[in-house]
Amino acid sequence: MKVPFKGIIAYPITPFDENEKVDIKLFKHLVELLVKNGSHGIAPLGSTGVLPYLSDEEKEAITEATIEQVDNRVPVLVGVSNLTTDRTVYHARFAESAGASAVMVIPMSYWKLTDDEIFRHFATVAEKISIPVMAYNNPATAGIDMSPALLKRLLEIPNVTMIKESTGDVQRMHYLRKELGEDVAFFNGSNPLALAAFSAGAKGWCTAAPNLIPELNLGLYEAIANNDLATAQNLFYKQLKLLKFIVEKGLPRAIKAGLTLLGEEGGSLRSPLNQLSEVEVKLLASLLKECGKEVYHSQPV
Amino acid sequence: MKVPFKGIIAYPITPFDENEKVDIKLFKHLVELLVKNGSHGIAPLGSTGVLPYLSDEEKEAITEATIEQVDNRVPVLVGVSNLTTDRTVYHARFAESAGASAVMVIPMSYWKLTDDEIFRHFATVAEKISIPVMAYNNPATAGIDMSPALLKRLLEIPNVTMIKESTGDVQRMHYLRKELGEDVAFFNGSNPLALAAFSAGAKGWCTAAPNLIPELNLGLYEAIANNDLATAQNLFYKQLKLLKFIVEKGLPRAIKAGLTLLGEEGGSLRSPLNQLSEVEVKLLASLLKECGKEVYHSQPV
Amino acid sequence: MKVPFKGIIAYPITPFDENEKVDIKLFKHLVELLVKNGSHGIAPLGSTGVLPYLSDEEKEAITEATIEQVDNRVPVLVGVSNLTTDRTVYHARFAESAGASAVMVIPMSYWKLTDDEIFRHFATVAEKISIPVMAYNNPATAGIDMSPALLKRLLEIPNVTMIKESTGDVQRMHYLRKELGEDVAFFNGSNPLALAAFSAGAKGWCTAAPNLIPELNLGLYEAIANNDLATAQNLFYKQLKLLKFIVEKGLPRAIKAGLTLLGEEGGSLRSPLNQLSEVEVKLLASLLKECGKEVYHSQPV
Amino acid sequence: MKVPFKGIIAYPITPFDENEKVDIKLFKHLVELLVKNGSHGIAPLGSTGVLPYLSDEEKEAITEATIEQVDNRVPVLVGVSNLTTDRTVYHARFAESAGASAVMVIPMSYWKLTDDEIFRHFATVAEKISIPVMAYNNPATAGIDMSPALLKRLLEIPNVTMIKESTGDVQRMHYLRKELGEDVAFFNGSNPLALAAFSAGAKGWCTAAPNLIPELNLGLYEAIANNDLATAQNLFYKQLKLLKFIVEKGLPRAIKAGLTLLGEEGGSLRSPLNQLSEVEVKLLASLLKECGKEVYHSQPV
Repeated sequence: MKVPFKGIIAYPITPFDENEKVDIKLFKHLVELLVKNGSHGIAPLGSTGVLPYLSDEEKEAITEATIEQVDNRVPVLVGVSNLTTDRTVYHARFAESAGASAVMVIPMSYWKLTDDEIFRHFATVAEKISIPVMAYNNPATAGIDMSPALLKRLLEIPNVTMIKESTGDVQRMHYLRKELGEDVAFFNGSNPLALAAFSAGAKGWCTAAPNLIPELNLGLYEAIANNDLATAQNLFYKQLKLLKFIVEKGLPRAIKAGLTLLGEEGGSLRSPLNQLSEVEVKLLASLLKECGKEVYHSQPV
Repeated sequence: MKVPFKGIIAYPITPFDENEKVDIKLFKHLVELLVKNGSHGIAPLGSTGVLPYLSDEEKEAITEATIEQVDNRVPVLVGVSNLTTDRTVYHARFAESAGASAVMVIPMSYWKLTDDEIFRHFATVAEKISIPVMAYNNPATAGIDMSPALLKRLLEIPNVTMIKESTGDVQRMHYLRKELGEDVAFFNGSNPLALAAFSAGAKGWCTAAPNLIPELNLGLYEAIANNDLATAQNLFYKQLKLLKFIVEKGLPRAIKAGLTLLGEEGGSLRSPLNQLSEVEVKLLASLLKECGKEVYHSQPV
Repeated sequence: MKVPFKGIIAYPITPFDENEKVDIKLFKHLVELLVKNGSHGIAPLGSTGVLPYLSDEEKEAITEATIEQVDNRVPVLVGVSNLTTDRTVYHARFAESAGASAVMVIPMSYWKLTDDEIFRHFATVAEKISIPVMAYNNPATAGIDMSPALLKRLLEIPNVTMIKESTGDVQRMHYLRKELGEDVAFFNGSNPLALAAFSAGAKGWCTAAPNLIPELNLGLYEAIANNDLATAQNLFYKQLKLLKFIVEKGLPRAIKAGLTLLGEEGGSLRSPLNQLSEVEVKLLASLLKECGKEVYHSQPV
Repeated sequence: MKVPFKGIIAYPITPFDENEKVDIKLFKHLVELLVKNGSHGIAPLGSTGVLPYLSDEEKEAITEATIEQVDNRVPVLVGVSNLTTDRTVYHARFAESAGASAVMVIPMSYWKLTDDEIFRHFATVAEKISIPVMAYNNPATAGIDMSPALLKRLLEIPNVTMIKESTGDVQRMHYLRKELGEDVAFFNGSNPLALAAFSAGAKGWCTAAPNLIPELNLGLYEAIANNDLATAQNLFYKQLKLLKFIVEKGLPRAIKAGLTLLGEEGGSLRSPLNQLSEVEVKLLASLLKECGKEVYHSQPV
């Protein structure tokens, strides 16, 4: 299946114990919550899952735990990005053999890569696996900004079938849709752009928000699917402040704090990432309440 | 009436004769075309109308010609911006006495103004007239970027009742709508953002495009008014390339060339503005055809 | 003489009376102070002189007053920029007939001009006069950023012989010097870049600072002329905070406030420009003291 | 010794063999060339040395090889940056025990770190070792831009004694020098800023250029040390085009190609990094000749 995803693709965090070791048991619990709340896909080892902070062994354990826990109820999209092509191939193969539905690749880079280097990177990875690849553009985390023209070129690689755009620039989606036609599978990765991206024709929304407010995220998608812009707009404005907050504060920090406020375990963060301040947690609590959530802990978490 | 506008607010160009003098007769003809094609409002002396290139006498002649030609069929929004507060007051009073429905003010500036200076500028102008003021933000032309927080503050001035946002940043519209509620009258001035802005709740679209493709502009607005996102999306993608072209090439240059292609007179430009190149005119011709228009001249104009 | 300027080119403010009318008598006094303190050239009607806020009559009065007061003691560089080519030609001719040594032209613009439009604008103005033209690049005030390649091209026009760069990007000066050789006459218009620009080979420094701290400005130039980097560095760091302050607060506002602090008259500003706050004036007073100046008024001015 | 470096600190590349394995023997040869040509310090595992592309074992081998080859002739600065605090501590300790003079730490990050997180990261690393730490700011590679105020704060940590600034913004160096006094040890890491940075008082220049043109790099430093700005300016303009080229093309790519042109071995690159194109290599050859170097291979390398 060339494009196994649509709708709300949920990103779990990677929780750590108090010694900053990955807590696989808690991770599986958080994945279960996402599946149960109706998310249309699960995407471990994204930015939300602090992929680049993990060792190879930790990445493999997270991949296996996700696939085991999801158990084919929804498709799984595994992040396999790495600085070198060699290590990216390694993790892509691991994900395929573990049962992933597709892999996500962002050209992380220290040195700015040329367009030809990026193309060769994707082509090399894609030809070593037979599952689909989602090309992911997010200059804010990866340091490289792939132009819409380069993204279009990447789609020439047979199993690169999906694009995730996280620049927050709706004009890039317009370009992709206009250049590639109605069938292009582009996904939005910028939370505050959710309404504009769906209005522009995005197939899905890649987001960590379903860890906290799945009802509003799924409701927005359904309104769009029903061609009901008025309802979509209304639901979007209900969740907008929360969406902006979790992006501005960093998804791993904000989701962990939000889970605790909702009465769930969020685990610890791995240094140098540090938890939100007391003031920030209080603000998050009030935003969750505005979204209709019951908050159990309003103290620093 | 506090907010006399909604829907498609059309911006005529200011045509010049071959000696670079304003051609009032041709201007009135172009205004008539905009009213006849169904535009919901007419806005002379905007950026499209090269306001800052005109002498005081020319501005006054354009103002009077518009109001006479429109003859109360739709409301008229007159641009009265000037570098000094004193001259802005002068032109605002002139517009009111001539019969304008409202004035538009952009804080043009050579020296970056402080927020307090901008607020005082608007307050001084607004209190000298009794018709509504539209505060206009367009850093690309004016060199000043008014923050959403400043725009919100400007709305505290009694007859500053409308905001026109031309940054092309949909998040600013989200902010205004979220901070000010459903009733805030914000208008979109960025053509390629037309769909996203209407999806976000914009009351209207300030645009020069109805000089060339009024059917598509009005159709988009009507689809949104009917809560029919699918149709709106379809109509938006039909006109997107043309909208991007006229913005990138500069509205006065592009509209003048487009009018000639459509068999109308566009007049000349005032130096240093120069007409589009032959290659650009050919591209414009093909884009007009894609929008369903019949093109009469495909030679350089 | 193709390049009549070098060293410190001083920019007077345009002072206004309490009714916001130009105060020519005070202006001539301020010009006299600049000549007496040793400035190597005088440049009225620059950004510091709020050129775009003035009427044609006011510009002409300022031009004549400067040339009369300077009385050939140093060369005079008159700003003649205007949005339209026609009005720029008018003011350039006026300046030449009044006795200016050269004119300065910045492509002020509301609509972004193409490189060809800018070239034609300069060529048209330059051919209508026989004195030299300084091409001035300052995107922060004019809204147009002329690339180094365009600036190089402008120097092909016979009497465009000087470039003033105010972007604050030392790499642009490197480019001009490298492309055009040691003899190119480029001037620095970014105060905090004074040391780096002279180190890069700038012929002169266009600055409003000699209204307040002429000794330090002239001393820096002399140290560079003596190939004494250590002394230049020392003098630069003495004045750096003041240079940054006057740029950040806007030169007309800051120079006016500084003159009052030093016991001189600075006149009023024209709206929307407003005077510095009490806190800002106190900070300016302390910075002037750090520069070795005696401050007479530390109260709000 | 709190600040063991001054002058020209040379960055070797990490060469790979045809199977993309690290070539330690060639690396030691390249280090020897840098020491012999008079560089004042050697800095392995920087951006030039593609630090983030290496495994832990490879980093350790490079560290040991450098210290063995340099053999105390000049001080050694080892890059130990890592995404997590834990791994940065590990490599810092390894460098100290291997005999490094100091370590360099850049806050590499996927998620934008807060100022407090960065401070804690540096404090944790610094307290686990007793050799000095150079804090390195380079948003172009690391994705985080540390403000001058944060850099100043980092210097409060006892053994954080040096700052390397690679933004290319000379105003940041002005700030550090002005805030921290003449004794602050700030180093320039932006090649095209070499002259401006030394003019501003930089203690040294961290650069990969001595792999290719050590004579010009060292000559520039000596002219500055002799307070001879005219000679420094002359030498800077001789090497400027080459400096810009190697930065624009990426240091690992450009240094590898340049070494081959000069008759040395440069090894291979690790994917996704790819060698320069034929056209780029020819341009590099001509730039090396302009710098007075004899070029042995002008064919693609």
